Amino acid sequence: MDLKNLREVCVCQETIFQGRLLRLNRDSVRLPNGVETTREVIHHPGAVAIVALEGDKLLLVRQYRYPIDQETLEIPAGKLEPGETPESCAQRELREETGYQGKLTYLGRFYSTPGFSNELIHLFSARDLVWAPLDADDDEFLGVERIPWVEAIRKAQQGEFQDAKTALGILMQAGKTRD
Amino acid sequence: MDLKNLREVCVCQETIFQGRLLRLNRDSVRLPNGVETTREVIHHPGAVAIVALEGDKLLLVRQYRYPIDQETLEIPAGKLEPGETPESCAQRELREETGYQGKLTYLGRFYSTPGFSNELIHLFSARDLVWAPLDADDDEFLGVERIPWVEAIRKAQQGEFQDAKTALGILMQAGKTRD
Repeated sequence: MDLKNLREVCVCQETIFQGRLLRLNRDSVRLPNGVETTREVIHHPGAVAIVALEGDKLLLVRQYRYPIDQETLEIPAGKLEPGETPESCAQRELREETGYQGKLTYLGRFYSTPGFSNELIHLFSARDLVWAPLDADDDEFLGVERIPWVEAIRKAQQGEFQDAKTALGILMQAGKTRD
Repeated sequence: MDLKNLREVCVCQETIFQGRLLRLNRDSVRLPNGVETTREVIHHPGAVAIVALEGDKLLLVRQYRYPIDQETLEIPAGKLEPGETPESCAQRELREETGYQGKLTYLGRFYSTPGFSNELIHLFSARDLVWAPLDADDDEFLGVERIPWVEAIRKAQQGEFQDAKTALGILMQAGKTRD
């Protein structure tokens, strides 16, 4: 079989659910070998996450995550609104979740789980923080915490954060600082 | 408001869709302030991913990812079968996707995107690889590639991989090697 063209061709799109946040499709696709199968896909608007440093402290957000029934400690993050650029989304989310705005630098972007979703997360670092709070979303309840940057790197390295974007953001930023 | 209890309490579970891979729930929940809202949640069986080193080369898998309509270069990975331990799943996926089995070491685990899914990914490293191929899933078409380990670290650091688990797995393993 030709491994030069691995593309799966959509032969029929079916939207199963359109919610407030997610759209679920079950599409029929033709595989490279000609066989048809189905793919279940979660369409997501995309998101941002911010590695915000106040001196040698990292700002983290404590929140409850319903899908995993756990409180987590994550870097500030949030989803893109329609028409919003990643940078303005990052500034808005940082202000809503921590009260600060900062000087943003783009760190990179990645798909959180490309096996079943198109969610793309843009990572920024933020420095030179200035107090400029915005009201948070009315269904978000957050607590802001600060931990030493070296402790954040150690925790990311040891797998002590619960989510991928927090550990990856910290380790990417740590690499830039080390270079 | 009491930020000591951020938990959202489920008042009504509704399964919208049960597919081959995903289950979509739209649950009614009570927020910490007493207001009710809905949460859209993707239930996933969980997955494993493997940082497999053959000498100073990293094994990567080239594949087409339908949700993002792109070919990606990722570390070998796959979802847990019912009753399977993460370790046996990692060994099976490594054999199916690369043809090798290896000596596994647990690196850590993380939720890929806890804002809307409970997918938990277990990360392993693999060394001392021995050829022991298993047939791959019949809807998977893969090409195995090797890149120098130092190049893999650089690419992860620069955000050149498309997905979170690949970059995070490499950077976590790199930190262990560096210590």
